Amino acid sequence: MKILLIGATGTIGSAVYSELSSRHEIITAGRNGADIPVDITSPESIVKMYEAVGMVDAVINTAGNTFFGSFSELTLENNEIALQSKLKGQINLVLLGRNYVNDHGSFTLTTGITMDDPIVGGVSAAMACGAISAFVKSAALEMPRGIRINNISPTVLEESIDIYEPYFPGFVPVPGSKVASAFRKSVEGAQTGQTYRVY
Amino acid sequence: MKILLIGATGTIGSAVYSELSSRHEIITAGRNGADIPVDITSPESIVKMYEAVGMVDAVINTAGNTFFGSFSELTLENNEIALQSKLKGQINLVLLGRNYVNDHGSFTLTTGITMDDPIVGGVSAAMACGAISAFVKSAALEMPRGIRINNISPTVLEESIDIYEPYFPGFVPVPGSKVASAFRKSVEGAQTGQTYRVY
Ligand SMILES: NC(=O)c1ccc[n+]([C@@H]2O[C@H](COP(=O)([O-])OP(=O)(O)OC[C@H]3O[C@@H](n4cnc5c(N)ncnc54)[C@H](OP(=O)(O)O)[C@@H]3O)[C@@H](O)[C@H]2O)c1
Ligand SMILES: NC(=O)c1ccc[n+]([C@@H]2O[C@H](COP(=O)([O-])OP(=O)(O)OC[C@H]3O[C@@H](n4cnc5c(N)ncnc54)[C@H](OP(=O)(O)O)[C@@H]3O)[C@@H](O)[C@H]2O)c1
Repeated sequence: MKILLIGATGTIGSAVYSELSSRHEIITAGRNGADIPVDITSPESIVKMYEAVGMVDAVINTAGNTFFGSFSELTLENNEIALQSKLKGQINLVLLGRNYVNDHGSFTLTTGITMDDPIVGGVSAAMACGAISAFVKSAALEMPRGIRINNISPTVLEESIDIYEPYFPGFVPVPGSKVASAFRKSVEGAQTGQTYRVY
Repeated sequence: MKILLIGATGTIGSAVYSELSSRHEIITAGRNGADIPVDITSPESIVKMYEAVGMVDAVINTAGNTFFGSFSELTLENNEIALQSKLKGQINLVLLGRNYVNDHGSFTLTTGITMDDPIVGGVSAAMACGAISAFVKSAALEMPRGIRINNISPTVLEESIDIYEPYFPGFVPVPGSKVASAFRKSVEGAQTGQTYRVY
């Protein structure tokens, strides 16, 4: 398959790249150091990316920023980070990319455990994840030409535990390779509308 | 209790008003025909509303618009209706209202069944509902001064079935009074972080 992987240089993206690159042709996208430059917070940039890449069999997104910090510090302004990036960025990748995915192709988006198992500091991230998970479940009913759509909700990764430890007390981290397997399941399997929880 | 009810003239809002007004002092808010004018898509308007109303024991929101229509017709532009109204409108009511709710008071927001049980035409609504439900679950952990927060997820109401029937084949409608009971449970009960499903 020809797969467009946005966020390929990140912790999750590089695990997905390792999992899939031996069997598939991967085109990477991101703001820096990828095959194709894209900023998912900009619809114009997303359109340019799809025009540059052309038709693909699968779009995988592992990019998406959020404000992490206490609810008392959550403002309308910093809540926009998640709204523009992880929430609308991912949805716009689908809305603007529908015509660039081949028949029976797929979209795979990224959410996260905070939507199910909340943590202090994760309100804005959870908001974005909840939106994406529900969007996926509904959009699956109406995707054209047999295109599928799923999302992967990882718990904290072993590779990220040093940074995120204080936020996730008692959460058991999983290896990036296990998370990457869920992306493989989404791309190479036949299910749609799913949230694959890797907890 | 002194309760601020935004969306009081609507189908759900008027059922909530009927349920609560005999036992509580209700201040209504909305764009038209309410005690206090407010447009929840405008942060400035939300701030003005809270300044006019002052401290309350509970904020209930039953307002929130979304684009209803096929996924093929969902665009970045019409997806903004749900993003600005049902999604950000409700979240901003909480972020801007935190300091106007008395100790041990509550926020109650409105979602809907489409986030759990998807329908054709409901992608944008589901996105907003999923965001609100996850936001509520996380925000409950960090609300200051014992303030609680819940959301009510109704299925289609008997009072609305004439309009929504074509979108909800086989969904069994519930009376507005049953939905209003869930709002009462949220306001007068002690739970927090909950999604009360009235299906
Ligand atoms: N790591 C975890 O433990 C974990 C667990 C659960 C969920 N998640 C979620 O998974 C997602 C990825 O996490 P991660 O740890 O892999 O993040 P990361 O290491 O920071 O990687 C993010 C990737 O996305 C790209 N990116 C960021 N913003 C972008 C934008 N606006 N446009 C295009 N590309 C952008 C980055 O490259 P450039 O900066 O060059 O653009 C990078 O390739 C996040 O949404 C995170 O919340 C992570
Ligand atoms: N009815 C159902 O069967 C059903 C089922 C599940 C979920 N829901 C959800 O519940 C919510 C309310 O539904 P409903 O049927 O009661 O709607 P509705 O009858 O149209 O009432 C909406 C209420 O909100 C107010 N409103 C709308 N936009 C506003 C804004 N920007 N700022 C302030 N007030 C605003 C309206 O008054 P003004 O126009 O004067 O502002 C009205 O009072 C919606 O989000 C809907 O998706 C409804």
